[in-house]
This record gives sequence, C-alpha cells and structure tokens, in this order.
Amino acid sequence: MASPTDLHAAPTAAVGTTPPVGTPIRVGIIGATGYVGGELIRLLAAHASVELVGLTGRERRGDPVGDVHPHLATTDFALESELVGDVDAVFMALPHGTAAQRVPELLGRGITVIDQGPDFRLRDAADYPRWYGFEHPHPELLARAVYGLPELHRAEHLAAGKARAAGTPALVGSPGCYPTATVLALAPLARAGLIADVVVDAKSGVSGAGREAKAEMLYAEVNESVRAYGVFSHRHTAEMEQELGLRGLDFLPHLIPMTRGILAAAHVRPLRPVTQAELDALYAEAYADEPFVTVVDAPPATGHVLGSNHARVFVRADERTGRILAIGVIDNLVKGAAGQGVQSFNLVFGLAETAGLEALPLAP
Amino acid sequence: MASPTDLHAAPTAAVGTTPPVGTPIRVGIIGATGYVGGELIRLLAAHASVELVGLTGRERRGDPVGDVHPHLATTDFALESELVGDVDAVFMALPHGTAAQRVPELLGRGITVIDQGPDFRLRDAADYPRWYGFEHPHPELLARAVYGLPELHRAEHLAAGKARAAGTPALVGSPGCYPTATVLALAPLARAGLIADVVVDAKSGVSGAGREAKAEMLYAEVNESVRAYGVFSHRHTAEMEQELGLRGLDFLPHLIPMTRGILAAAHVRPLRPVTQAELDALYAEAYADEPFVTVVDAPPATGHVLGSNHARVFVRADERTGRILAIGVIDNLVKGAAGQGVQSFNLVFGLAETAGLEALPLAP
Amino acid sequence: MASPTDLHAAPTAAVGTTPPVGTPIRVGIIGATGYVGGELIRLLAAHASVELVGLTGRERRGDPVGDVHPHLATTDFALESELVGDVDAVFMALPHGTAAQRVPELLGRGITVIDQGPDFRLRDAADYPRWYGFEHPHPELLARAVYGLPELHRAEHLAAGKARAAGTPALVGSPGCYPTATVLALAPLARAGLIADVVVDAKSGVSGAGREAKAEMLYAEVNESVRAYGVFSHRHTAEMEQELGLRGLDFLPHLIPMTRGILAAAHVRPLRPVTQAELDALYAEAYADEPFVTVVDAPPATGHVLGSNHARVFVRADERTGRILAIGVIDNLVKGAAGQGVQSFNLVFGLAETAGLEALPLAP
Amino acid sequence: MASPTDLHAAPTAAVGTTPPVGTPIRVGIIGATGYVGGELIRLLAAHASVELVGLTGRERRGDPVGDVHPHLATTDFALESELVGDVDAVFMALPHGTAAQRVPELLGRGITVIDQGPDFRLRDAADYPRWYGFEHPHPELLARAVYGLPELHRAEHLAAGKARAAGTPALVGSPGCYPTATVLALAPLARAGLIADVVVDAKSGVSGAGREAKAEMLYAEVNESVRAYGVFSHRHTAEMEQELGLRGLDFLPHLIPMTRGILAAAHVRPLRPVTQAELDALYAEAYADEPFVTVVDAPPATGHVLGSNHARVFVRADERTGRILAIGVIDNLVKGAAGQGVQSFNLVFGLAETAGLEALPLAP
Repeated sequence: MASPTDLHAAPTAAVGTTPPVGTPIRVGIIGATGYVGGELIRLLAAHASVELVGLTGRERRGDPVGDVHPHLATTDFALESELVGDVDAVFMALPHGTAAQRVPELLGRGITVIDQGPDFRLRDAADYPRWYGFEHPHPELLARAVYGLPELHRAEHLAAGKARAAGTPALVGSPGCYPTATVLALAPLARAGLIADVVVDAKSGVSGAGREAKAEMLYAEVNESVRAYGVFSHRHTAEMEQELGLRGLDFLPHLIPMTRGILAAAHVRPLRPVTQAELDALYAEAYADEPFVTVVDAPPATGHVLGSNHARVFVRADERTGRILAIGVIDNLVKGAAGQGVQSFNLVFGLAETAGLEALPLAP
Repeated sequence: MASPTDLHAAPTAAVGTTPPVGTPIRVGIIGATGYVGGELIRLLAAHASVELVGLTGRERRGDPVGDVHPHLATTDFALESELVGDVDAVFMALPHGTAAQRVPELLGRGITVIDQGPDFRLRDAADYPRWYGFEHPHPELLARAVYGLPELHRAEHLAAGKARAAGTPALVGSPGCYPTATVLALAPLARAGLIADVVVDAKSGVSGAGREAKAEMLYAEVNESVRAYGVFSHRHTAEMEQELGLRGLDFLPHLIPMTRGILAAAHVRPLRPVTQAELDALYAEAYADEPFVTVVDAPPATGHVLGSNHARVFVRADERTGRILAIGVIDNLVKGAAGQGVQSFNLVFGLAETAGLEALPLAP
Repeated sequence: MASPTDLHAAPTAAVGTTPPVGTPIRVGIIGATGYVGGELIRLLAAHASVELVGLTGRERRGDPVGDVHPHLATTDFALESELVGDVDAVFMALPHGTAAQRVPELLGRGITVIDQGPDFRLRDAADYPRWYGFEHPHPELLARAVYGLPELHRAEHLAAGKARAAGTPALVGSPGCYPTATVLALAPLARAGLIADVVVDAKSGVSGAGREAKAEMLYAEVNESVRAYGVFSHRHTAEMEQELGLRGLDFLPHLIPMTRGILAAAHVRPLRPVTQAELDALYAEAYADEPFVTVVDAPPATGHVLGSNHARVFVRADERTGRILAIGVIDNLVKGAAGQGVQSFNLVFGLAETAGLEALPLAP
Repeated sequence: MASPTDLHAAPTAAVGTTPPVGTPIRVGIIGATGYVGGELIRLLAAHASVELVGLTGRERRGDPVGDVHPHLATTDFALESELVGDVDAVFMALPHGTAAQRVPELLGRGITVIDQGPDFRLRDAADYPRWYGFEHPHPELLARAVYGLPELHRAEHLAAGKARAAGTPALVGSPGCYPTATVLALAPLARAGLIADVVVDAKSGVSGAGREAKAEMLYAEVNESVRAYGVFSHRHTAEMEQELGLRGLDFLPHLIPMTRGILAAAHVRPLRPVTQAELDALYAEAYADEPFVTVVDAPPATGHVLGSNHARVFVRADERTGRILAIGVIDNLVKGAAGQGVQSFNLVFGLAETAGLEALPLAP
C-alpha cells in the first residue's frame, strides 16, 4: 500500500528539470506493433516534448507504420527490427519475461525505461515464479523500479526523476489494466484500513488480450457472449494484493463484447460500519487534486473514458447489507497501459503530468 | 429455499393428464408486443400441443404480428386489443403491478395463468411495497402461486397440474432472469447450508430492459461500454433471497453490450472449508437428471446457450482464498423468461417438460 | 439461369420415396468442426428423419462434440478422424478443392453428397482455375451436380431424388452465401430478362470467414468498423453470373461488425421502364408458394431471419432515376449454408422440404 | 461541382487574420446536447484559439455539461437555455428548418455561423421543399453560404474569411455525413467528367441518427443486424448531386451495428475506359496536399479514422467489367459533422486549417 505521503504528493504542473523548449526528449518504442505499441505511437507522436526516434517490431525492417497500424498511415514513421540511434527513454511493450532480460543493458546505456509489461511491477521476486512461471533474471532491479501508478506513487516518480536528472536512468513498471482500475477504486479504503474482505469482479474489452491471432478471440467467438476466465489464477491478482496491502483477494475477470474498457466492481466487507459521508470525504481527499481521477455520484460507464487517460471512481455504502461497493472504470489501453506509461514518463522527465494526455474521452 | 424433496422430483417425460393427440391446449398471450411476448409466440407457435388462439397488445386491433415482430412475418397471427375466445391458459408479459389486478378474473374463468412478470414470485406480501413500490392487490394468491423454477419446484408444479386437471386453474409466477441464473448456480450450495456470505455480480444483455424507447438504451449509448446499475436496489434481490433462504445478499447487475444472455458470478464465502470433490458431488446430484441444466468444467459463456432454454452451471473451490465461485449462464429471454414459462406450462399441463423447448443453442 | 419450368416446380410437402417411419436416413458430416459443420449438427440432430452416425474433424478421434462446439455440449456426439460406418448421405464442409477429390469415391459407394463448398457449384470447368485457382479434378461430375438452390432448381433436385431412389446417388453443390441472397433477390428480374446492368453491393457478418484464427478477424479488428474486401475478385461472382445468366456483374462484398447475416443490395438498370406493379406481380409469382422466401414491402433486416432458413426479398422501382433496387437478406450459416444443404437433402430424399428447418427466426 | 480553381486552393497553414495570441475567438454552440453538440464541445474545448463561452440546450439552465455528456464531466462548462454573452462565432446543431429561422438575426449581430444542419447546404431553394419538406424562409442567404467542404471549396472559405475580417460575418453550411464521404470519393472523377452513371451504396453507424429515444434505434434492435433505409428518398442525395454536378444519382444508405463511421462505396460506369494509372494520377493531384484526405491502396475501414477528422479514399478500375469503384470512409461525427465544422471555422478565422483537429484516429 502506498504511504499517505506518497498519495498526497501533489500532481506536478511543471518541475525544474523540464528540457528547454526546442530540445525534445528522444524516445524509442520496443514492441511497437501490438495494440499498446500503437497507442504509444498515437500518444507520443502528438506529445509536444517528445521526438519519436525509433520504433521496433520483429522482422519489420523499414515497414511504414501504416502497414501495421492503418489508422496511423498519415504519420511518416517506419518500423525497424532493432532500436537504432540515441534515445533518452524507451517504452517497452513486450511479452512477460522478455523486458526483464533487456532492461539492464538499456539502463547501463543511461536510458530511462518505461516497461508496459509486468516484469518490474512486483516487489517480491518470489511472485514471478508463483504467478508468471518464470524466475526473474534481475531481482535486484525490483526495488529500484517505480510502480507506475502516479496517483499512489507520485513521490517515487519525482525522486526517480531527480535521480535521472543527476545521471541515473529511471525504471518504471507500468501497472496492469485490471490493477489500475481496481487499485484506484479501492486505495482510499485500503489506506484507511477499512477492508475486511473484498471481491473484485471485473469486466474487460478484448483489446487487453492483444493482437495475436487466437481462435477464441475471433469476432464470431466474442460477440454476443460474456464469459469469465483466469478463474483464481489471473496474474494481476499479485499486483492488486501488493498495492492494496491485502492477502487472499478474490479476483475474477470477464471478457465482454467490446474492444476497449475495464470496469472493476469491488465488493467490500468493511472492518467497521462506514457511512456514505465518510466515504465521500475519504475519496474527495484522495482524488480532489488528481487530474485523471474523477469521483462521480452515479455508476460510471467505461464509455465515459474511452480513448482517454481518465478514470472514474464511484463508491457507495449499503445500509441494508453493511457492505461497500467501489467501482473504477478506465480505458485499458490508455490509463490501463500506454497513457499511464506516458503519465509516468512525464513525471520522470519533469514535464507537466498531463502533457500529451489532454484528450477528452470520445463518446458516443 | 426449495425443500430437498422438491428439488429431487424427477423431470417429467409425460404425465397422465396429457391431452389426447388432436386436442391442442388453447393458449393466449397478454402482452405480446414486447420481447418476452415475441419469444412466447416464437416458442408456442412451434409447440406441438398448443394452439395459439389470442395475442393481445395495446391498440393493436387486427394488426398482423409481422408489423410488430418482423421476424415472425411468416406466421399468420394477428394482434388484438383484448383477448377473445376461450383459452385454457394465458401467458402474461406485463409491467409489474398490472398482472396482479387481472389474474383473479382469469382464474375465476378457469384459466391457468403463467405470469412472466414479478407479481406472483414473492411469498411475502410485504416484499412488494418494499422492492416494487406497490401494495399487492391480492396477497391471498401469493401462497397459491407456484414459483416457476421447475428445477427447484417441480413437485409444486406437478401438484398444481393435478389440481388443474381436477378443475382448479394453476397460477405460476415465472422467475426473473437474474434469479434464474443465480439460483441455479447457488441452489446446491444453499441447500447444503454452505453459504456464509455471497456476492452476486451479474452481467446482462440489454434485451432484459425491454422494448420501450429510452435514450439510455440506444445503440450508441450501450455499444462499446459497460456499467453497473440498480446499485443496492435491484428488485430481483428479493427473489434470490427468498429462493436461496438468505438475507443480506449483495447483488450488483451490469449492462453489457450484447442483446441476449445473463452471466451471474456468485462469490461465496463458505461456512466451512469445502473441497472441489464435494462441490462436484453436490452439483452432480442436483442436476444430473435435469434436461436444461448442465454442469460444466470450464467457465461457461452466455453464447453457449443463446436462443435456447439451456443453462450452464460452473462451480470451483479456491484453495488459496478458501472461497467458492459459482457461475450460471442463461439466455435471459428463454430460460430467463419465455422458455421457463413454457417449461412450467408443460409441467402444469402434464406434457413432456421439454415440449417446444428442444432447440439447441445457436452459435456462433 | 434456371429455366421457367424449374423455377415453377412446386415445393414438396412429401414425396413417395419418404423412408418408412422408423428407418431414419443415416447421415455423416465431413468437416464438422467449423461454423458450417456446427450448424449442420445443430440442424440434423433435431431432424426427425435423420440419424447422425458420423462426424469427422481432423485429429479429433473420440473428442466429444462439446469440446469443439460448447453450445452442443448436451448432445452426445463424438468426432472421429475418419468417417466410420455406413451412411446414406454425407454433408461436406471442407476448403475448396478438397471435396472435389473425395466425392467420386463416396458416390462410388452409393452415398449421396451434399457439398457445402464451391467444388460442384459451377457448370463450366474453366471457372475453377479462373476464380478458384485450381483445375477441377473431376469436371465430368459438374454436369451431374445439382446447384442446390431449390427455389430455382427444384425440378433438378426431384429428378436427382428419383435417380437416387433408383440407385444412383445424388450430388448437390450447395450455393455460396452471397449468391443465395443475391440470386433470390434478382431471379425474377433475370428470368423476365429485365436486367441491363447490375451492381451488387453486399454486407456480411464475419462468420462467413470461418473459424480459423486470423488476426484480421479478431474481435478488436472487426468491431466498430466496416470495410470492403475481395474488390473485383470475389469468387462468388462466378456463381451469381451463372445463375443469373449475366456477364460483367459488379459485385462488392463488405465485412460488417456482426456475426451472422448477409444483406445483398442489387442496384439494377432495367432494359426498359418497369412499374412497381409489374415488379410486385413478378415477385409474387416467383415466391408466393415458397416456404422460405417472403417478399416484404419494407426494407428487410438480416435480424429478421437470424438463425433460420428464411429469406426476405424486397424490390422497388424508382421513378426519379428509372432504376430498380432489389434486396435479399439471409442468415449466411443457415439459408446461406447448412440450412440450404438440409433443404436440398430433404428434396433428394423425398422428405418434406421444410423438415428440420421449421425454426422461426430469433429476435431480438 | 467545385471549380478546378476552388479545388486547388492550397490548404492554409496560417493566414494573416489570425487573432493575436492571447485573444481567443469567442464561440458559442446552439444545440449542445446531442451527439454533434458533444463532439463540438470535445473539439472546441481543446482548441487553442477558442474560448467556449456559451452552450445551449433546451430547458437546461445551469446544468453541468457532465449531466448530459458524462464523458465531458471533467470540463467545467454548463448549459444554458439561451446563448448569453458576446460571441464571435456560433456553431448550430439543430433539426432541419430551425437554423434557417435563427441565422439572419445572428448574422445581423455580426456573428459568424457554422451550421451543422442542412439549412444552408443547398444552392437551389426549390430543393428544400422537394427533399426536406419545408419552404426555406431565407432563400437569399443560400448564395452567400459557403458549402463547408474545404477540400472542394477552400477558396470560398478564404474569401468568406476575408469578408469576415472586413466586417461581414460568414455563413457556412457544413456538409452532411454521407455527402462528405461520397463527394470526397468521387470529386476527382466528377471534375474530370468521367462519370456516366453512379450507384452510391453507403453504410453508417447509428450515431448519425441522433440521440433522441426511438425504439428502432435501441441496442437490441440494431445489434447483429443490417438494413437499408431511406430508399430512393434520403435527403443527402440532393447535396451529392449538387456537389458532383450529377442528376439521377442512385443513393442507398444502410444502418449497420456500430456507433461511428461511414463507408460510401461508389460504383461508377465511366464515360470512357479509364486505367488505374490515370485514376492514381487524378486522385494524387486532388489530394496530395490535403491534410485530412489520404488516398490508400487497400480498401479502407472506418476503423482507420475513428475519432478523427481524417478521411481515406480508395479508387480502382476493373478491367473485367470496365467499371470504377471509389470508396470513402470517415467518422460521421468528426469529418462528417463537428470536425468538418471546425475545419471551416479555422479557414474563416484565418487559423491553421488543422487547428484543434490534430488528433490521430483511435484504434483498435
């Protein structure tokens, strides 16, 4: 669980280390051909302080980005098999276990790394074999990595930013999509020590499953149907327990027929009776100054945040049952992946936290 | 909670009161213009023992069914404003509070009533003002009504059928869609007295919201989005608590972008540790002979039962957390409404329980 | 183009060759694991005159059908690698070029073949290399094969049925999905020699693309998007030209975000001015007695025929432009594939043409 | 048809009349509660040169924008019943016939008007009773109005901008969604005088039908279905004929199950044989310098432009049939409505044509 200090570090409007105008930060993307890669290009191409200098994808020497991401055909980027040229920072969007092997070399070259995968999210190295099935090759880096949820770890981001400015590149493990929605919904309760027991029942669009051809992800299989998956075994459970300071969290994800969006409904049995007024105060305190988290008073829909880095959080106490319901919604590819990575990047490079993330949600 | 005897009454292949071949049962539908009405026509038009003799819809004198239900344009039915002609049974698909006023007159004419609405589902008359906001006009009928979930109340159906054959028309309160999925998923656990606490998190297609024009149900509002609704207040909670013998059930429904289907995920904290083997035995015992309930060993999808009266149930014990997950999936318009009504009708009229419900699910 | 005689052969209610009750026709399915295979199982399992005795799928020795088609888990069929046991008829649902190689052996064993693929649809052997890229291995069978669109070729079906009863197994090339919708929409105009020029612009759900894992058919790629494909080169063009007796037909198919359904809009420039009254008479004459084709007077939706063997046809003359619009809608997996195959099978085996196809469409 | 000069006016990067930095243009929106209104807010709220000073919606005095457009809840705008305060420009998103009555008063106050409705799109006043069923109350304004498709009418926009700077407010009739997609696809052919005959078969998401509650636009009615509508009578036909200089254009729109996006497939019979090379040259000349129109060499999908002001155009000659196919895709709410309005606004106010429209498309 994030410490109170951490949670209260104010969002940054700008910090002293901002590069002078005219000296863009040189950024590369490793793994630019998937959905998260595409989102990173979309966001970073429009980021005023960024120069995208290298996009990599396997076996993609010289291919225009539009061949892989037709919606980006109007940009003039090309994909390369290997990252070429000097970069200040790299975003990685790779299968789990892959980034862990490549990061030390990048850090050694002074390159800040924002890893969109899970390889640097967990603090306890033992969680990797337990939940991901691989031994972490560089457990010594886990303590150094910042968990890239700025709303809970802003101070750590800023500290990493200071170190970066002093010559030590930063390493951010950007959170999973389900943990982002869930932890934002529950953090105020967890911090207040109110959770006796919690069931997290989440619903996700299918883009989280990635772009690889799998028969079970065909349109005809997904459309007009809903199913649970990852029963008792979803890897994101470890992150949620780590960030909420809980054990035995009951997490169940579902696949629903939509492309983007995650809704996490957290059903909480509190340690003591809690009033709605108390909840309102807790959540207002936690999120009043957050640029991307809005506490709402009607059940939020994922469609309210589509295509944006925004999150909506809703919390209600039930007098009849004595329970609390907390709901968080995000766009899994933005606040749940690429956008969140950019938010961390901004903090680490001393930019306005919202730089490149100003887009309002798209509806309907 | 259904008594064990009740639960174990064998499904009927045929019972002595079957009308002789060539004498179809004359059936009317009151409220034939909505989605449940359309499903009733679809199912009853193909039912070998039924003659559909009257379909009513407000202000619809003489309109061909195809004007309201274009998919049924090849049938030659017409809609009337009032039910005309003699009928043996009536299916009612009306807004809550409406059927309750009309049923006594129908029963008085010797007509068996299958009410697809909520007016005869609850045993405690006080639940109507509490959950539905109206005083029940005929509370004396609540004890007589059969809760139309044959898997739990088959013996009551058969008793009502005997009484019907002896001259007393039957009254069935056909279950709500969420309770059907939820109660089927949890009944074996409830009967075994294993539930300490349960969270029911359900996901529904939008056809359950009916056919009335509401801006919030427009395609552009529902598509590519998910949201919770009815927080702490959904009326179906009362039914679930009644049928499971629980109080303080935490029920949260969600609207997801699909037309048909309900998935109810029940997260159970058991009163004592339970093994998977014990669960398997409990569910096999409960459902081995049921024609419409299949216990499966992978998480079921609503797409596996689309367009059919089938339900799939899945149950798993989690060693790590000590919890139990039970999932039920149905097509909300068939097993959750019209199909279930026909199943009750079959029992009450001494027909094979599966008559008119033989269709396999449609996939993809 | 079908001859007038052909088109006017009356639908069969029953023909003398019906097997005696109690002697079901033994049927096998080769290629039972795809979407068309699943539909064949769904339909034939419920067909009163059929015993399904063999289902094959590659590398599937003994697998329960429910492993491949979870919606069919309540049936007790299993898949085999090879067809075993004696069968009277075989439905084939295989990639193009495959059936052509296996059919002679099956015919030689006296087995009637309903081929759901394209290998026996075209009369001119030269069309196979031109449109499909393979030389037909048995061009001598093309003249013998019946084009399985009963509404245009009923007399041929009945003749093949007579021959079958006399010992010569039948061979049916069941039409493609686009040609079914298109030819039904245009046949009355084509027969009347009214078409000067026609543009066929069609829209299809994605199930027609089959069940193979392809990245471009992932849910996230198909959802919320529409695109044309097969520009100037779709193989079904050959069938349409053959059946309509036209050359130079302009056919453009689109993929739209839905699972089932085809709508073909045919924009006709007529050879001479035509009135709506003339069109109404032409279409009424063509389809008044057809059990599966209904001429409607409002633009039909694919949702009006979902899950059924029904087609809807709509035709309108435009005084302003002098053009004619003809629209046909079907469910591509039923009337556009498996259902149509069963319809042909029924005719060839002397059964009621609608046997096993009685299901009304599913809506919403 | 636009004159060649018109078509060739270069896109503006910036023009001398740009207001000095620090003096934003004051903009109001009349009709801010619908889908186009929401898009206008989304775009203009992020427009660097705009200050949104008034949003109106019927009976909405003081309501926060988030009550009507939950995705915009993080903005601090409120809705008013009437436009209050001084504005330099007004966007109108009103039902047809309504804007025409209010525009003279606005122009009289020196306010530039961008009308997103049809009231100022047509040049011939007789087209209003013919296609829209109302007599235009101010036909004298039709000649003054600019048809707001900058790719064809850039010079007129710039002239209106000059007049505006000199004190005469501008009036733009922003094009319909179908005409935008269609005219962009066909303009190079029309300008070259190559079209003998054209069939335009278009497919649209449902957001174009607006936000009013209509039963036929319910999710359950639209999902998993496609249908044609507006047969021979769609009002946008008039615009297309006007802009392409054609008569008797055959236009057929379809409603498909998606929220945003229009694909127009134009099937052209050319006046003389045309080669692909000639088409490539024509389209390159027309669009090479256009910031929002990209000529692509594979059939474009609407998903390639989602949420953006981009259009994709594709053109192919078919040797076999001698026909030409031209396809245009847009997001109907952006390039087909609000975004196009902003593009016109930019030109008229001497801003960079792409100001506020820089967002890349969102995919998947």
